[in-house]
Amino acid sequence: MSVYPPHSGSQSVILAEDKAMPLDCGTSIRDVKMAYCTYGTLNADKSNAILVCHALTGDQFAASKQPITGKNGWWDQMIGPGKVLDTDKYFIVSSNVLGGCMGTTGPKDINPETGSPYGLNFPIITIGDMVRAQALLQDYLGIDSWFSLIGGSMGGMQVLQWASAYPERCFSAIPIACAARHSAQNIAFHEVGRQAVMADPSWQGGDYYDSETKPTAGLAVARMAAHVTYLSEAALHRKFGRNLQDRDRLTYGFDADFQVESYLRYQGINFVDRFDANSYLYITRAMDYFDLVEDHGGSLANAFQKTPTRFCVVSFSSDWLFPTSENREIVHALIAAAANVSFVEVETDKGHDAFLLDTPEMFKTIQGFLQSSAKSRGLTDE
Amino acid sequence: MSVYPPHSGSQSVILAEDKAMPLDCGTSIRDVKMAYCTYGTLNADKSNAILVCHALTGDQFAASKQPITGKNGWWDQMIGPGKVLDTDKYFIVSSNVLGGCMGTTGPKDINPETGSPYGLNFPIITIGDMVRAQALLQDYLGIDSWFSLIGGSMGGMQVLQWASAYPERCFSAIPIACAARHSAQNIAFHEVGRQAVMADPSWQGGDYYDSETKPTAGLAVARMAAHVTYLSEAALHRKFGRNLQDRDRLTYGFDADFQVESYLRYQGINFVDRFDANSYLYITRAMDYFDLVEDHGGSLANAFQKTPTRFCVVSFSSDWLFPTSENREIVHALIAAAANVSFVEVETDKGHDAFLLDTPEMFKTIQGFLQSSAKSRGLTDE
Repeated sequence: MSVYPPHSGSQSVILAEDKAMPLDCGTSIRDVKMAYCTYGTLNADKSNAILVCHALTGDQFAASKQPITGKNGWWDQMIGPGKVLDTDKYFIVSSNVLGGCMGTTGPKDINPETGSPYGLNFPIITIGDMVRAQALLQDYLGIDSWFSLIGGSMGGMQVLQWASAYPERCFSAIPIACAARHSAQNIAFHEVGRQAVMADPSWQGGDYYDSETKPTAGLAVARMAAHVTYLSEAALHRKFGRNLQDRDRLTYGFDADFQVESYLRYQGINFVDRFDANSYLYITRAMDYFDLVEDHGGSLANAFQKTPTRFCVVSFSSDWLFPTSENREIVHALIAAAANVSFVEVETDKGHDAFLLDTPEMFKTIQGFLQSSAKSRGLTDE
Repeated sequence: MSVYPPHSGSQSVILAEDKAMPLDCGTSIRDVKMAYCTYGTLNADKSNAILVCHALTGDQFAASKQPITGKNGWWDQMIGPGKVLDTDKYFIVSSNVLGGCMGTTGPKDINPETGSPYGLNFPIITIGDMVRAQALLQDYLGIDSWFSLIGGSMGGMQVLQWASAYPERCFSAIPIACAARHSAQNIAFHEVGRQAVMADPSWQGGDYYDSETKPTAGLAVARMAAHVTYLSEAALHRKFGRNLQDRDRLTYGFDADFQVESYLRYQGINFVDRFDANSYLYITRAMDYFDLVEDHGGSLANAFQKTPTRFCVVSFSSDWLFPTSENREIVHALIAAAANVSFVEVETDKGHDAFLLDTPEMFKTIQGFLQSSAKSRGLTDE
């Protein structure tokens, strides 16, 4: 039984209708619209739901065609019948984060107090706020406790925040390639991206929604800079090396002589069609601000004391954005908090991006963890 | 005896006057103006001269006050009486590279054929072209053979190019933190920087010299992106961590809450006063194009066959822009070419920037190498 069709498109719901949802910055936000997709069927006792949390530039279309790009969902390889997040067994929920631009309330939406788009009047949101809104969605769906929560990168931060803030609502949790607090280097790269957006005169202090020109050039540069950090040097060397793009020799000019240049330009140009520049600012800021250590008196173990949640932490050997050492800090804290935790460092040269790619060892690890968790929760006979 | 004062300011000379210097791109360039500084005194037989090669954003003011910033030279710690590059013993020459913007011919100079600044009509130059121009300077100075050549990063590339193209003119060579060819990841970061400049409407296709506005915003973003790559994650963590800038708590805004943001913005803003955006494009391109392996039929050892030059290769353990593995490739090729080579990987957490900083193990290594080289050249009694 479920009112949710097995493979729905994106749905939308107003959460906190006519009441204010408090935000970490001290203000609050009303009438939060939340856009989400679901895959699979919720079982009778609502015990098989998995929340998929997306990364910085992800969206709710985890396993659906993205309506703007027409491409398959970003986790199409993970979600579906017989796949790791098996829609024959589990009910998958994937929502666009607060501050996003694919239907959930964000800076491009109308500020009810002014009747104009928020722009930079949108409040600064945190990973905690994103999760608070997701908890309202959980309430709305009538799900007392997620069977699991899973996500990579910023998605992993949300998973950690969930387990810390709502332990009783998380049966299991799979943070992938993330950290309990954003590093100085990562803040630095985010700041470069934000400055690239803000340097674009079309950004106009964030008030560009009614303009003909949008800050696409700045946003493309931000995306390009970020994209380099998602790959490893080894992957770039293997994929591109110093290979030339559609030419036999150097052209002695500023065209994209090298394949890696052509690839990066493509990443930049394609991104701006589907992403809002202000959302990019807000979501990177939320990641910068994420610091579960500071939030818990300087001890990450305090974030998870007596947690009932079972954890599976996954890192990638060539990820230099969220290196294994930072994932290991999470594991150490969970062990110190006497949590049930397993940890796998997947050997791969694909860098941070590995969580979005065909990474068999990651698939196997998560599948095994979910199977044992399903057994613990009595889901196996269904 | 020397016509060069011990601590001169920047001097300037027209090389290849009234004749064309050929360029790797197939064209040529006339009347190359070369700006350089010298420190110390050239000895009677002109056997004590060291050429210092600067990096991407360096200049000839290696040990002089930079006239625009008023700051000490970028290698002030290395060059001077009693220092590693001892001006009591050696005659140090430091020239601004071809394509630069501190006096040597570059894109901001007047194109004699049009009477207007070159802009993007400046020919694409290579590390080989930079070195060819330096060889003309060497001729002009009447120096048959440099006692040593030294430089970090792009400076190291020039050193390698020198030793490969003019082995008889290089008694010893000290390439630091560099590579024999620019990696895909480094090309990618350079492309991000170039796109940041080109995305700035004030860039105007490179034709901004007569405009009131210059592409300073784009150039600042390029500098910020590059600057992150010069440091290591450990150095960023040690220097800044998640420390806040002049405030007790997060401001929930886009100001530079974190010290690392404030630092980066400072790096960006200060850079644009002293550097020309087009020079940034041209010099990054020269680095991208650098590939001594490809230039020598796919074998780096071929670049150094039967070399008479003594080499000292230095890398830094935390340098991820020019990692030790890439420096080691140079060493392996030199060994395969039966060269006299010593190699030190300096243990430091300072990242690529270490070559510009107070790095005692680097100082000691280079000092020792120069002393033994000086003995071999019979310089020790002077």
